[in-house]
Amino acid sequence: MIVLGIDPGLANTGYGVVATDRRSASDGRLLALDGGVIATLSAQAPERRLAEIHAAVEALLEEHEPDAVALEQLYFGQNVQTAFAVGQARGVVLLAAGQRGIPCAGYTPQQVKGAVCGNGRASKDQVARMVQALLGLAQEPRPDHAADALAVAVCHVNCAPLAMALAGAREGMEALR
Amino acid sequence: MIVLGIDPGLANTGYGVVATDRRSASDGRLLALDGGVIATLSAQAPERRLAEIHAAVEALLEEHEPDAVALEQLYFGQNVQTAFAVGQARGVVLLAAGQRGIPCAGYTPQQVKGAVCGNGRASKDQVARMVQALLGLAQEPRPDHAADALAVAVCHVNCAPLAMALAGAREGMEALR
Repeated sequence: MIVLGIDPGLANTGYGVVATDRRSASDGRLLALDGGVIATLSAQAPERRLAEIHAAVEALLEEHEPDAVALEQLYFGQNVQTAFAVGQARGVVLLAAGQRGIPCAGYTPQQVKGAVCGNGRASKDQVARMVQALLGLAQEPRPDHAADALAVAVCHVNCAPLAMALAGAREGMEALR
Repeated sequence: MIVLGIDPGLANTGYGVVATDRRSASDGRLLALDGGVIATLSAQAPERRLAEIHAAVEALLEEHEPDAVALEQLYFGQNVQTAFAVGQARGVVLLAAGQRGIPCAGYTPQQVKGAVCGNGRASKDQVARMVQALLGLAQEPRPDHAADALAVAVCHVNCAPLAMALAGAREGMEALR
């Protein structure tokens, strides 16, 4: 399973590609295939910046052919203007996936921290250290946006089997009625 | 001049295409070339709904080849979750324009009302009646999202000459220094 994690933003969209290692499926080891930041300049018109983000995400989908895209979801504490700007960036990321029929999932920061550290209130440093350990990286992932994107991808890899099992259980329950 | 006006939303994105009538440039008469709503179903995944909106806007740009896209801008009174959803829809509209190099402009509801009715606090009905009169429509534009989209397009047609004159004046001032 390959997951593209995205931490969306108009100025900086973090990305991270995580794969389950097929050679060691039994111990569920994870690999980081890619990671970084799509940065756009504030001097450019928003429509040009969004086109750059969309093109960069398309290139990542083309290169890594992920099975799913996992996005960090809005934090309620943000203000309306920030939510609006982040929403625009998130929209073109979802679009790039939707145009290829790749399913998307959103996770709140609490869900990501819970899945990565076992604690929804873990600090940014704890998350970075756990992502480093889980992905076997030589050093902590940098910058922050890339680390957040890798973390949400790890979260999806860890949560997807449970989500699928739950969906299967629901279908089983339906079939019994 | 042809302007595509958009009132963005994930469930309903209103659109309206307004042109200045070349045969009567002197009296600045306006024509409505198109108008309607791009509706998406909440049962579908957001990424599919955004892909539908993007494809529909692309088709409008292809058909009408507008000189500009004018969007209704966020209303500060909205809550964070609404702003986020509207932002996503707005993002894919901006993207469709940005991918073709068509400039975009945003107007607040107050600016639209001011440009269409001469009163930033005009009611929805007053705006609809003025849009009907300015575009010479047989009846008030319906539904609301299409009316709002036509209004923001009319706003851009009315404001663009002033904006260009101001930009020209600024350049003139710069040249004098």
